[in-house]
Parts: sequence; structure tokens; C-alpha cells
Amino acid sequence: MNTTFRGVIPPVVTPLTADRQLDRASFKRSIDRLVDAGVNGLFFLGSSGEVAFSTDERRREIIEAAIEFTAGRVPVLVGCIDTETERVIAHAKVAAELGADAIVATAPFYALGGLPEIENHFRLIHEAVDLPLFAYDIPVCVHVKLPGDLLIRLGLDGVLTGVKDSSNDDVSFRFLCDANRKAGHPLVLLTGQAGVVEGAYMVGADGSVPGLGNVECTGYVRMWQAYEAGDWATVRTEQDKLAALMNIVNVTSGVSGFGAGVGAFKTAMALLGIFETNQMPNPVRALTGANVEAVAGVLRECGLEPVRTAEEVSASTVVA
Amino acid sequence: MNTTFRGVIPPVVTPLTADRQLDRASFKRSIDRLVDAGVNGLFFLGSSGEVAFSTDERRREIIEAAIEFTAGRVPVLVGCIDTETERVIAHAKVAAELGADAIVATAPFYALGGLPEIENHFRLIHEAVDLPLFAYDIPVCVHVKLPGDLLIRLGLDGVLTGVKDSSNDDVSFRFLCDANRKAGHPLVLLTGQAGVVEGAYMVGADGSVPGLGNVECTGYVRMWQAYEAGDWATVRTEQDKLAALMNIVNVTSGVSGFGAGVGAFKTAMALLGIFETNQMPNPVRALTGANVEAVAGVLRECGLEPVRTAEEVSASTVVA
Amino acid sequence: MNTTFRGVIPPVVTPLTADRQLDRASFKRSIDRLVDAGVNGLFFLGSSGEVAFSTDERRREIIEAAIEFTAGRVPVLVGCIDTETERVIAHAKVAAELGADAIVATAPFYALGGLPEIENHFRLIHEAVDLPLFAYDIPVCVHVKLPGDLLIRLGLDGVLTGVKDSSNDDVSFRFLCDANRKAGHPLVLLTGQAGVVEGAYMVGADGSVPGLGNVECTGYVRMWQAYEAGDWATVRTEQDKLAALMNIVNVTSGVSGFGAGVGAFKTAMALLGIFETNQMPNPVRALTGANVEAVAGVLRECGLEPVRTAEEVSASTVVA
Amino acid sequence: MNTTFRGVIPPVVTPLTADRQLDRASFKRSIDRLVDAGVNGLFFLGSSGEVAFSTDERRREIIEAAIEFTAGRVPVLVGCIDTETERVIAHAKVAAELGADAIVATAPFYALGGLPEIENHFRLIHEAVDLPLFAYDIPVCVHVKLPGDLLIRLGLDGVLTGVKDSSNDDVSFRFLCDANRKAGHPLVLLTGQAGVVEGAYMVGADGSVPGLGNVECTGYVRMWQAYEAGDWATVRTEQDKLAALMNIVNVTSGVSGFGAGVGAFKTAMALLGIFETNQMPNPVRALTGANVEAVAGVLRECGLEPVRTAEEVSASTVVA
Repeated sequence: MNTTFRGVIPPVVTPLTADRQLDRASFKRSIDRLVDAGVNGLFFLGSSGEVAFSTDERRREIIEAAIEFTAGRVPVLVGCIDTETERVIAHAKVAAELGADAIVATAPFYALGGLPEIENHFRLIHEAVDLPLFAYDIPVCVHVKLPGDLLIRLGLDGVLTGVKDSSNDDVSFRFLCDANRKAGHPLVLLTGQAGVVEGAYMVGADGSVPGLGNVECTGYVRMWQAYEAGDWATVRTEQDKLAALMNIVNVTSGVSGFGAGVGAFKTAMALLGIFETNQMPNPVRALTGANVEAVAGVLRECGLEPVRTAEEVSASTVVA
Repeated sequence: MNTTFRGVIPPVVTPLTADRQLDRASFKRSIDRLVDAGVNGLFFLGSSGEVAFSTDERRREIIEAAIEFTAGRVPVLVGCIDTETERVIAHAKVAAELGADAIVATAPFYALGGLPEIENHFRLIHEAVDLPLFAYDIPVCVHVKLPGDLLIRLGLDGVLTGVKDSSNDDVSFRFLCDANRKAGHPLVLLTGQAGVVEGAYMVGADGSVPGLGNVECTGYVRMWQAYEAGDWATVRTEQDKLAALMNIVNVTSGVSGFGAGVGAFKTAMALLGIFETNQMPNPVRALTGANVEAVAGVLRECGLEPVRTAEEVSASTVVA
Repeated sequence: MNTTFRGVIPPVVTPLTADRQLDRASFKRSIDRLVDAGVNGLFFLGSSGEVAFSTDERRREIIEAAIEFTAGRVPVLVGCIDTETERVIAHAKVAAELGADAIVATAPFYALGGLPEIENHFRLIHEAVDLPLFAYDIPVCVHVKLPGDLLIRLGLDGVLTGVKDSSNDDVSFRFLCDANRKAGHPLVLLTGQAGVVEGAYMVGADGSVPGLGNVECTGYVRMWQAYEAGDWATVRTEQDKLAALMNIVNVTSGVSGFGAGVGAFKTAMALLGIFETNQMPNPVRALTGANVEAVAGVLRECGLEPVRTAEEVSASTVVA
Repeated sequence: MNTTFRGVIPPVVTPLTADRQLDRASFKRSIDRLVDAGVNGLFFLGSSGEVAFSTDERRREIIEAAIEFTAGRVPVLVGCIDTETERVIAHAKVAAELGADAIVATAPFYALGGLPEIENHFRLIHEAVDLPLFAYDIPVCVHVKLPGDLLIRLGLDGVLTGVKDSSNDDVSFRFLCDANRKAGHPLVLLTGQAGVVEGAYMVGADGSVPGLGNVECTGYVRMWQAYEAGDWATVRTEQDKLAALMNIVNVTSGVSGFGAGVGAFKTAMALLGIFETNQMPNPVRALTGANVEAVAGVLRECGLEPVRTAEEVSASTVVA
């Protein structure tokens, strides 16, 4: 069983300047803060890393900065998310060239296909790029659920190193964990459901990829350590606190999807002084006004005191 | 907070004779076995209680037998599942007349509607029938997810006593549990995901409604007691064993949906001598041959020795 | 090929009194108006006939009144819509007993299943009830699309007499019509898409079941006659006028699904003096105020002058 | 109303060599054949033009060849299909630089969003690139249906020149055509449903984008001319013949989605000697054996005699 990619591996959110350039200073600050908190790895260009919104040039810029700022302190996983095999391979080659430690790919999307195409897709990526490959199971984005038996088979064949499970299907994740154990643990199984990591640990997950970790990561690290120590009461207490904080994604109004979720993460990080702005990539709009206030309110309730006012954050995306 | 409906409340599977009549002897045997195992209540005419397949006459027959055989030892909840309000109310009045302790209703289905219709639906049922009302959140059947804020509001208004959550959406269930706690615990929150009950307990569920409990209920009872005692290691051990048993629904082939799920439960119960047959309601066919063997194999792996052969069970649905 | 059920067969909307009883006088008025317009049959207790909202007692009342008021002038088809086989058969036996000329059933819904269950379902209904059987293909309600090859096979086997297609999938309907022709026309193929009947005629449909026909049926009859005569210019002109009228379902706000669609039909019929009220079945609310005005506006634009004011119609659902 | 983009505008299928390079000779042959048949424009890099499977480099190669081979004889539309705004704009700038006459973009996909993001997306693309912009409405790929009122508003604001409708929702298309007429015809409305173009013409479409036109285009041209002349009987006859030919996508087995649809088109074109191979892009496999035979059988039934054997076509994808 692979042990390089166990533990807490947050999907790193990408900071932008007001005019939507990569904000390198904020990016470095955030990466340092995560590494200092004790994470076991960092996942760049995931769904919350705005991979779908980033041009190829921007993706390259993000990977280069990620590798530079992480500086080998923890493994770097890079999302190579695109519609079909050859496009994914093109991204994967860039990631390999720039020094990624592992790559992460979803099932094909946009065009219609079936399981034979999905299996062939992962096999072809693995043949083309010599890096550990994680399957990213995210049906809400790609509209197909990766079947457990396919994943195990690809693990046993050495095609997949692990799975990042964002399927919000805890029943299937439970069966996957059990089947993986029976098969000799070929796959590293990471949950991406930041609000219910404790449930994934209960069924034997090898780690977590919590988007909320961008805002507050020490709790996820403590929860992981408690899990390793079999201290379930602490696992539960830590998760309860994090779930309360997760309410930043529920208290806004008039926004939805990525704008509500990552929008709240970025806003919280701007309020806490980690990010310079809460700017969002086109065509999404940044949170403003009452929505920023609402996020600040949740932070305060959870004992995270903002260092900037809601007005300052709302103003942060105005291009000078 | 209501304490009458806490704990383990299995959704009782309905036994049929070979010619698809209610098999009263098997039904009594199963109910006695569940009560003896220490359950806190029994839920009849749920999805796995084949409510959708049962005529009105059969539903009445099931409720009467359920009340008679349970004999007041534990509370009896009755599913009043139908397309729209007036049809649900008609079922609920029968349940009330026959002595049910609570009724369970889904959102409307078949006709298209929105949240105002759903809210009105539950309010009208509550006004029409003077019994504790549970909302049954089962999007896979009714194609809508009940929003947490609606459920809490209906709880605070005294319309709903609780929720039976079969949404397979652990993130939403987590938010619902937290919101319920904040609101003063107006709702009894029961999870219907038999394979991941431990995750639901981690987030604070008030009980479970495990279909698999029909096959093996003592584990669910021990898990509940361990949860109440804060003994998480035992919670986890018990759930792991039950999840292994849950594989009876995965080892068959050529069947799907209700036929695969409840079909496996009935087959296991026939193999264990609880049910006389594994007959299924029209238009579903009972498991036979290799599928029965496969279920028997899982039972043995889990230490539950069949008392009948696969051949005997396969033959049990032949009409003399 | 069956010729009893060809042509225009509107799905008859069910009028209610303010206190939600069957409004027999309005029902008779509407049926007479449809028969006088020259329809070729009448379909009661379809989706727009509020079958899902009607108790068994109400369904019986509707069928009795329908048979009485139609008085043999045209064939009467009755929707036997329920979750699974035995429940559908129970409805079908009532319909047969009361004198229906044909029955209409959907695929099973609520419980999960597959194609073998669907095929068995229709075969069992056919065996149980000696009346022509139509399959009602309405995936938006039952969440499965009936495959063309299954329908043709059931037609050739004498199980199905025809199909009422409400799938809003004109590509599949085209393939079904072609396959039916090739197979010797075993099935009567009726389209339920009231706004694009001309497209269905282009591909060779045997008739239509237009909900909008409740409001204005003479256009559908003229379109059918033009189709039979090969006069496509008239087919097109008539459909264009009907499509303009169909905007009654688009001009309202704050309502959705059945409440918007059948709600607009009932409101138009109340404005035109055919129905006494525009009352809707629980839990749906009748259109009021600006929504009634908007429907009246479309009627006027289409040359159908309301005989009652919007205020009168809005007031019609107030229980005295 | 724009008249540059009316009529028959096939989505051109991309031929590959056995080793999956762009087959320029076959591409030229196909383009010449389409122009000679009398098409009114050509749409490259649509869904059936394998845009989702093509790397950026391949997309550029296709556009260059398309412009070169079309040689100004008809307008060239280029699909700029990618997940989000900035990625689409990057493609659109390449298309503009290489000489496209119009660009075609879908709603954003992969990341979750709402209508404000979709509207902003089209506005930003229009601001960034000075070419006529078509919205590509293809919910089966992007999992959202573009609302008619949004499309009309973007048409009136000069953002959109037209819509390529592949929604398989003829009811919505009917409403869109009517609303467009009422608004002064700001949008060119093209249907992408190759099997039911006649229905779209009945409701007033401005043209069609038939994938099947790659195999046989003269029928689509004759149908368009008949439509312009009001000769509906000919419209119907031509469509009936084309629908019979469309069965090439139904007669195969063991394949699905893009592999079945475009796979059948490419196979037919290889059998007819237009394409050198029926090779498919990774991870999809080309049709072989009995599937190629089946396609050849439909061609023959439709009077299109293959010039190569099924064996030759099956062998065509073997890399030397």
C-alpha cells in the first residue's frame, strides 16, 4: 500500500488579483499556512482550485508557483481535468515536466460514452505519463459514478494509485473501502467530502481532501491524528467544529454552485487576511455586501476573528 | 424532544406465500425475532416493506397483522406512501383506525410540482390525521430532496415529528442534524442507510431504520447501545460486520433495484428459515439458482449458517 | 391496424367545485363541447385529468360520470395510473366494470426496477383485464423512457394496442413510428405533445392527445382532418394558432409543474365559462390575481374572448 | 435577420488515419462533396466533429484545413467548446485568427453554476471576440437547457447571432421559434436533430445542422429547398428517406454514445469511399466486424451501395 499520499491533502484554492491574475503573494501565504498546519500533501488544480476556469497558460502558471512555493515539503498532486483522453494527457505531460508528484483525472465528460471508454481512458493516461495516477470520482461534475469494481481492477493492474472520492455517496464509498481492503489495499482512498470526513474515517479512508481546509486546516490535521490513534471522541469533536464552519457555504443568498462554495472559501480567506481579494474567475462573480457579512458572521461564531472588514473585502475586487 | 421513536426501527420486509398472499406465519416469526433482538420500534409498509406493490386491501391486511403480532411491545410506524395528498390521507386514516403509533409519508411524486406543494402536502396530512408524522426523504424514489430548512420549519411548527432519511446524502444529513440541534431538536432524525449507520451516529442521528436489520438485527441493536454509551470502537466493529453482510445485495447478477435489494433480503431470510419463501410481488421475480447460492455464500462468510439449501429456497416460489 | 382509437383524443381535465368535489355540471359541459367539436375519443384520468391527485373513490366517480356524459358517442379511454402492477390491475378492473373502452397504464414507478419488470408489468395487466391496453410513455413522471423495441414487441404479441407518447423525445417517436410501420402497424401511436402535434403527424402519428384541446379543440380537429387529406399548409396554420394559445402555460409566475400547466387550462376554461371554478386538487393552489389576468390576456390575443372577469375566476375557489 | 447562416449547415465529421492523425485527403474529399451537394455552410469542431477529443493543436490543424479546403465557397462556423469562459475565449481567438466566419459555444460545463453565470459567459465571449456568436444548446452534454427568454434577450442585445439547438426538446424549440418571430427574428435558429428536421421546419426553423448529412447530404438540401418553396409533401418524403438511413446508429451492438453515433457515421463514410478509415479518437474504439456489416446493410437498404467491403473497413484502423 502506498503511504506517500495518506492523510490530509487539501485541494488548494487559487487566489486572484482584482483583475483576475494569479495572486502569487497570497498563493505563497496560503501554501505556507497549510504546510505549517501539518498537511500531508497539497492538491492543486482540483475543482475548487478552479481548474475548469483556468486557461492552459494559467494552469501552467499555477503549477509552477505551486511547485516553487511548496518546495518539496509535501507531495504535490495536480489535477489534469479535461473532456477526453488526449486533452488530459496533454495536461499531464505539462504537470510531469514541471515536477508534479502525482496527477488526478476524472472520467471523460461532455461527449457520451460508457464504461469501456472510461476504463480505456485511465489506462491510456497511465501508459502515456509516468506518474502516480488518481481517479477523481465527481459525478456532480462529470455525470457518471465510477464503479467500485472498475476502480479496484485498475488499482490491482497498477493503473491507479488511488481515488479522490467526491461522489457524496457514502454507501458506495463504504463498499469501495471494504473491497479495497479485501483486495490487499491497492488503492489509496481519499474522501473529498469536507463536512463528513469522520464518516469516511469510520469506514477506513486513507485520508481526506477537504476544501474547507483552505480556511481552517489545523482541525483536519488534529482529526487525522486522532483517527490514526483510534481516538474517536476527538475525531467527532473536531469534525463538529469544522461542520459548523462549513456553514459559510450555506449563509449566502442569490449565488449557487462554484460561486457559493469556492466563493465563500475565498471570502473567508480574504476576511482572515490570507488572500488579498475574494475575486472569482469569469464568468462567476465574487461575493459582496451582505453575503460577505454573513460569511464573517460564521467565522466569528466559530472563533475565527476576521482581520479585515466586510467592506474592505467587498472592495477588494474593484480594479483600480 | 420526542423519545418514543429513538433507536433501531427496522423497515419490516413483507413475506409472501408462493402464490403471493401475505404469509402470516413468517410475518409473525420475523416480527417476534426483531422484537426479541431489542429493537425500539417497527416500520411497516416502507419501500422495502413493498408498499408500492401492495393493493389497498393488502396494505390493510399488513397493518392489521403488524399491529396484532407486535402486540404493543414496541411502537408501530406505518408508511402511507402514495402520489399526492388526498391519497396519502386516505391511507393515513386507515393506519390511524387500525392503531398505528405514527405515520410516514414521502413528498408527492408522479405529478410535477415545487416546494410550496411539498410544504402544503405535509401540512394537510398533519391537519387531517392526528398521529405523529414522519417525512420520508427518499429522492431515489420520488425524485426530489427535502430541503433541511423546510424540515426544520415543519418540525418547529409541530407538523413533523421526525424524518426518515434515505437520501444517501450524508452531507445534507450532517447539516440537518446540526440545524436540528440548534433549533432545540424538534425532529427525531433517523437514517435509512443501513450500510453506513455509524456515520449517521457520528453526526448525531437519533436512530436508524436499517433494511438489513431484517436479516440480522442484533448487530444494529449492539451498535445503538454502543453509540449511546459513547463506545465508538464497538460502533465501528459492529458496522463493519453488518457492511460485510450487506454484500448480499451486490453478489447477484441479472437483477436490479428492488428485485436485487429486497430480493436478497427475502432470500437470506428464507435461507435462514425465517421466511417460508423468497417470493416477490408482481412484476418482480424472486431470486433463483446461482443468485440464491451467492446470497447463501455471503451468509456463511458472515457466520450466519443457512438452515435450508439454495435448491429448497429456489423451489419455494413454485405454486403447487 | 386498430382504427377505433385514431384521431384527436383529448386528455379530459377534471373540474372541481370550490370545496374540491367533482363538479358534474362543468364536467358534462366540457365533455359535450369536446364531442361536439368532433373529437375521436376521450381520455379520462390521465396526468392532466389529475389521476395522481384523485382518491380511488374520486377516480370511480370520475369514470362513472365520464361514461354517463359521453354516452357512447366516442370511445372512452381510462388512465389506470399507479405505482406497480397489482395496484394498476385493481384500477383497471374498476374501469372495465364501469364500461371503459380501453385502459392506459404507465411503466411502474416509485420502486426501482429494470426493463424485465416493465415488460412483465404490461403483460400481467393485459392478462388480468380484457380491454385494449395503451402504454403511457411519460418519463418526466415515471423517470424511465419506454424503449421502442419493447413497445413493438408488446404490440406484435397483442399485449399493447397502442402508445400514448408524452416523452417529449421526437427523435425516439420518429424511430418508433418507422419501426411500427415496418412491423405491420401493430400499435396505434398517439402523441401527447400538444404544442408540436404537426411534427408527430409529419412522422406518421395515428393521432394526438392534446391537453390544450380542453381549452380549444376545434383547431386540433381541423388539423387532424387536414393531415388525413395531406393538406400540410393547413396543418401548419392550425398548429401555429394552437401554439400561440399554448402560451397560457408560460405567462404565469410563481407556479410550476402541474399547477402551472393544468392550472392554466382550468383557468382558461373558467374564463371561457366552461368550468365554474379553476380550483386545483390538494396540495396545489389555483391560479389567482395577476396570473389569471395573464391567462385572460393570451386568450384575447388568440381571439377567445373570456365571458368572465379575472376577478370572478379568482374568487371562484373561495369556499362559501 | 441574418441570412448568412440559413439553410443546411452540416457538422463536419473529422477523419482520422489509422494512427489517429488528421486525414487531410479524406477531409478534403468530404468537404468538397458537401459543398458540391449545395450546403449553405459548414460547422467544424462540433460535438460530432470530435471537438471534445481534440487537443488544442489538433483543433488548430482542423480549423486550418477546414478554411483551406472550404476556400470561401460557404461560411465556416467553428465550435469553441470548453468548460468555462476564458478557455472558450482562447479557442475563439484562434478561430478568429485563422479566418472563421462564426463561432459556436455551449453553456459552461463541469463546474456548477446558474443562469447568471451562463448569461455572463456569452456576454464575455461576445465582448472578447468580434465574430458572430452562436449558442449551442446541448443539454445532453452540458447538463443545462438554455432558456428561451435568455436566448431572445441575448439576441436582441446583439450578443448572439443564432442558436444551434441540439436539445431534443421540440416543445421548447417551438416556443423559441415563436418568441423569436415575435421579437423581430433577432436569432438564426438551426436545429441539430437530424432525424426530425421536418418538424423543426414546420415550426419555422431557419436551417439545420444534420450530422447524418456527412453520409448523405443531397436529401437535406432537397428538403431545405422544398421547405423554402412550401412543398411539404417533398419535405416529408425526403425526411422519411433520411430517417431510414439514420438507422445506421441503431443497428450496432455493444457500443454507446459517441462511439455508436459518430462511429456509425465514420463507418458509413468509409464504406462509401469518402473516408479512408473509420478510426475513432481515444478512448473510443472504431466499429468492427458485425457492426460494420450492419451499417453496410442499412446503406444498401437505402440505396447507397458501399464501394468497400466490411472487411476492408474493419481492417482500415490497423496501424501498419
